[in-house]
Amino acid sequence: MFEFRLEARCEVTGARAGTLVTPHGIIETPVFMPVGTQATVKAMTPDELAGMGAQIILSNTYHLYLRPGSGLIREAGGLHRFMDWGGAILTDSGGFQVFSLSGLRKVTDEGVTFRSHLDGSSHFMTPEKAVSVQEELGSDIAMCFDECVPYPSSEAASMEAVLRTTRWAQRCKAVHGRGGQALFGIVQGSVFEAQRLRSAEALMEIGFDGYAIGGLSVGEPHAEMYRILDVLNPVLPVDRPRYLMGVGLPSNLVEGVTRGIDMFDCVLPTRTGRNGTVFFSGGRLNLKNASFARDFGPIDPECDCMVCRRFTRAYLRHLYKAGEILAARLCSWHNIHFLVHLMKRARGAILAGRFPEFRDSFLTRFGEGGPVS
Amino acid sequence: MFEFRLEARCEVTGARAGTLVTPHGIIETPVFMPVGTQATVKAMTPDELAGMGAQIILSNTYHLYLRPGSGLIREAGGLHRFMDWGGAILTDSGGFQVFSLSGLRKVTDEGVTFRSHLDGSSHFMTPEKAVSVQEELGSDIAMCFDECVPYPSSEAASMEAVLRTTRWAQRCKAVHGRGGQALFGIVQGSVFEAQRLRSAEALMEIGFDGYAIGGLSVGEPHAEMYRILDVLNPVLPVDRPRYLMGVGLPSNLVEGVTRGIDMFDCVLPTRTGRNGTVFFSGGRLNLKNASFARDFGPIDPECDCMVCRRFTRAYLRHLYKAGEILAARLCSWHNIHFLVHLMKRARGAILAGRFPEFRDSFLTRFGEGGPVS
Repeated sequence: MFEFRLEARCEVTGARAGTLVTPHGIIETPVFMPVGTQATVKAMTPDELAGMGAQIILSNTYHLYLRPGSGLIREAGGLHRFMDWGGAILTDSGGFQVFSLSGLRKVTDEGVTFRSHLDGSSHFMTPEKAVSVQEELGSDIAMCFDECVPYPSSEAASMEAVLRTTRWAQRCKAVHGRGGQALFGIVQGSVFEAQRLRSAEALMEIGFDGYAIGGLSVGEPHAEMYRILDVLNPVLPVDRPRYLMGVGLPSNLVEGVTRGIDMFDCVLPTRTGRNGTVFFSGGRLNLKNASFARDFGPIDPECDCMVCRRFTRAYLRHLYKAGEILAARLCSWHNIHFLVHLMKRARGAILAGRFPEFRDSFLTRFGEGGPVS
Repeated sequence: MFEFRLEARCEVTGARAGTLVTPHGIIETPVFMPVGTQATVKAMTPDELAGMGAQIILSNTYHLYLRPGSGLIREAGGLHRFMDWGGAILTDSGGFQVFSLSGLRKVTDEGVTFRSHLDGSSHFMTPEKAVSVQEELGSDIAMCFDECVPYPSSEAASMEAVLRTTRWAQRCKAVHGRGGQALFGIVQGSVFEAQRLRSAEALMEIGFDGYAIGGLSVGEPHAEMYRILDVLNPVLPVDRPRYLMGVGLPSNLVEGVTRGIDMFDCVLPTRTGRNGTVFFSGGRLNLKNASFARDFGPIDPECDCMVCRRFTRAYLRHLYKAGEILAARLCSWHNIHFLVHLMKRARGAILAGRFPEFRDSFLTRFGEGGPVS
């Protein structure tokens, strides 16, 4: 019930176009996965996501385990039914959140003791439990429980995390019950090429349905991220999907596709959208700026999303200044649409054999995302 | 371009079914008008409102005058275009808000000096200016600038406000430029029958396209409201629409229709929706209660709104507990749908000659809205 078919490869760059078959539909890659942390992509309905062509979303095991609890979601018939999303779902393992969100944690080979960011209660998470929680959630793709080191970290600390992540990946694989659910390994190793290669090779030895690259976009310069992707691109198996975790800046997505990445997720479009920052062909702009008060054009004249077809920058700015929920809705909508369609356009360019031109044209105009003006 | 046609009257109660023709479509009465205070019905898109059958919304002159300014909205092509709402719009005059929201006000016969609740700036509003601002907004129905007294007030204070409201109504009528926009007068007089009759007769003398009843639902017992409606019902002209301002509790709507009211507006469905309180056939319930944690049924099994067809009480409760915007969206959606369709059902019952049965059946189950359980 899980299959990856490679359809086309760019002859100049590492860009790939493929198809992922899951129990909840076919996913055309490269793909951006909107993030539904707490069983909802913030401010959006499932219908709106499906309507703009989103085929898969991500949800967070750590958050759902703590609230409302994976047992309750299992009782509801699983996460798809609980949130009424008919497309595919990838759940992360909770590893990243345990290390970034929770307080007072203690890591041993057995697992991680952490305190809930909600109520301070103490919890013990193991690779086996992370798999079991994701099975209760019923996601289409589960992730191995991993250890993430912050940036910067020493190579020794990074190596220790890689070794533990490898042992945990073995345990995840050992207990994972399949049943249509795919299991991805997560390559760690910070910005150290040797560690990244060690991690990738160890995971490939165990064998997974797909390979994620974790621990990037955590504060390192973009050039460092690209360097690591360049190192991993020729090493990861060609016939498995590759997922760059937590990356959502449009220029990073296009650079990632250039380096063989098939899947991305990030809270950026919804988080910055709620704050009034929107993507457009020329970078980013902050709708709260006074210069938009009488700007009766759309966010992006080249965008065909519902928001750009119907509402003006002046109206969106008014909604922000007035503190209206509709502002968060419309800017989240536009930003998600922008990333989902950026990947659809990249896919079209790969299939048409003109990805390098697409990439150059996009990056020249978008740049690094510009200052948030 | 503005016309009211009475289609049917209940033979037992004062209930009426009619049709309002406006420059932005036909409105079937009795009707509930969702409130879009700041050029948006909170948390909703215009498409969602149209999709559930809303034909007219209300927007607030006081708020839009202060932010973003009626001049900016005129530049945008008027309020319909600014917010992309294709249906009809009724704007209030700002009178109620000047008296309830703004600080430090001084009332003279000429007008009201008040301080903005946004930045403390000083403004002077007159009947003429209220009309001119509403003409800039381009609403389909404008309201006369009126003076509202709080509850309780003395009969002397109430009479003074009625006399001033009458003089102001004359001035509004004198400067109103028409151009397809209707102008309604507002009957004041608190809970004093003599003052209400004095106010209604004076306004009818001037002559308006419709008659609103203001200054109710401001803290008086429901029985007092119903008593005043009973007094006005036989007096107001049969061939003009009657609008009970600020009333949104389902039982009050049905009692209002019973007493000849054609139009209602209220922030209740959106304000309480954002707080997790939803209407259902049996009254109201608060989705935050722990008893709904594993309740996998819809808000109201008898409701056919999108929310009730797709989401469970358990999911909605989770969204509230998690502080998700989608909670506010979905409960606002359901509550507005509930009131819009309550009025559509009342209209159907009136046209079918069975309104008394409909009313009794509804009120028996809904009661006074129940404790918010």
